Amino acid sequence: MNKYLDLINSELDKYMPDGSDVVSRAMRYSIENGGKRIRPTLVLEFCRLCGGDEKKALPLACAIEMIHTYSLIHDDLPCMDNDDYRRGKPSCHIAFGYEYALLAGDALLTLAFKTAAEFSLDARLTVEAIKTLADAAGWSGMVGGQVLDLQNEGKKVSLGQVEKTDELKTGELIRASCVMGCIAADRFDMIPYAEEYAKCIGTAFQIVDDILDVTSDAETLGKPIGSDVENEKCTYVSLMGIEKAKEYVSKLTEKAKKALMNFENDASDLADFADSMARRKS
Amino acid sequence: MNKYLDLINSELDKYMPDGSDVVSRAMRYSIENGGKRIRPTLVLEFCRLCGGDEKKALPLACAIEMIHTYSLIHDDLPCMDNDDYRRGKPSCHIAFGYEYALLAGDALLTLAFKTAAEFSLDARLTVEAIKTLADAAGWSGMVGGQVLDLQNEGKKVSLGQVEKTDELKTGELIRASCVMGCIAADRFDMIPYAEEYAKCIGTAFQIVDDILDVTSDAETLGKPIGSDVENEKCTYVSLMGIEKAKEYVSKLTEKAKKALMNFENDASDLADFADSMARRKS
Repeated sequence: MNKYLDLINSELDKYMPDGSDVVSRAMRYSIENGGKRIRPTLVLEFCRLCGGDEKKALPLACAIEMIHTYSLIHDDLPCMDNDDYRRGKPSCHIAFGYEYALLAGDALLTLAFKTAAEFSLDARLTVEAIKTLADAAGWSGMVGGQVLDLQNEGKKVSLGQVEKTDELKTGELIRASCVMGCIAADRFDMIPYAEEYAKCIGTAFQIVDDILDVTSDAETLGKPIGSDVENEKCTYVSLMGIEKAKEYVSKLTEKAKKALMNFENDASDLADFADSMARRKS
Repeated sequence: MNKYLDLINSELDKYMPDGSDVVSRAMRYSIENGGKRIRPTLVLEFCRLCGGDEKKALPLACAIEMIHTYSLIHDDLPCMDNDDYRRGKPSCHIAFGYEYALLAGDALLTLAFKTAAEFSLDARLTVEAIKTLADAAGWSGMVGGQVLDLQNEGKKVSLGQVEKTDELKTGELIRASCVMGCIAADRFDMIPYAEEYAKCIGTAFQIVDDILDVTSDAETLGKPIGSDVENEKCTYVSLMGIEKAKEYVSKLTEKAKKALMNFENDASDLADFADSMARRKS
């Protein structure tokens, strides 16, 4: 699934502002801080799977990575999670100051929509993709999940509430990635299967996160472990136990792979991706 | 120019989330905090002036008001201007907390693009309007102006730098409003005249702001006066003197009205608007 990595990185680079001002540098710093580019990869691969030209979908792929990156910058701010490190490097606000991190996040979110609007195959599809992106990122999606997350802090919450929070906070952008791939190929009929795959790998991804927080070590994971226990956070692991959580991941991964069988083209890369997400160590 | 006020307010109300959660309430609180709705009014009036159906342009009008509102919320945050009051009421972060104000701003910015995408006359025009909006709001526009504003703080800057900062920070959204009105009516040929009008009233608006900060009283203005002098901020008034600044406003207002003569339809409301902006007391 790394086959698109260079393509995505060089395209992202093209869209970034080239100014020498603090906000330009802060935007570049955060976007270049080596993520796995999972979301843009999903956009391109679902586009290809639907018979579309994945290169044409690059603006949509970059747009979702910008939204993901902005959300990390704002999430790390002192008034939110107050994290000084992100992927082993100083967070944006530590490197550039709070006010510039705030503005860099705002600018990346805005640039995401500018970039999505560059999808030029068919204006009708562009508008649909933008609606999908905005729904997934906004109050009814990711931001809504961040709100639930803040409100759950230090509280005993049910498994249903944990699921709802994760579904919005991380699941919605993953869903939008898969769906935008179908839209880019003008295959609205495939959206339900893309959504099924997205929902399964999104939940599995989150559960694996919770498992690694308990079973990994800081060096492998690239961030401190045990933070969920320390913060008395209700997670899949604390609510289901490790064994049941691992079983649930296997079940979701199989379900994700089954959803892929509805596509005519070869979906083995996305099937492998689901497997690798389930087995990941960091 | 208040002829659209009820229309804009009821349309904005329709787009706001109806949740009882903190972020929904924070978004509503800020959007309902009685602004003059200058930007959406400009969208609708330029659409009408270009022979378009202004009701159809309402999504674009609401989108720009949401962006304006998000920028005020983030501008008031402690890491930015640290303002506890906005239009005589507690700022969003004072009323709802820093983290929720941050998220309410993020959600409003996102909702702006969702709302603009609801413009349904022609997808090609929708995409153009979204590009205009994103350019004006992002790094190359409003956010860029906020960066300059932060960097100018406490420094002696030239009149040219003051102009550049204001042009980006407040001028770009005003420009986008006028331009989006033309786009909504599919009259791209009228954009240069709309831009000329926008540039003149934008600058005039800013100069009047600077004048009022020196000549008004807090009760009339609805906010503390003398803050520019206190912050040793370089403004049109500190750099040109009051009399020259007033003359410049008159000149710009005449120039704005001249630009309107290029439109076939009756532009007297926009001419009156330019006059009233120049004469305003708050």
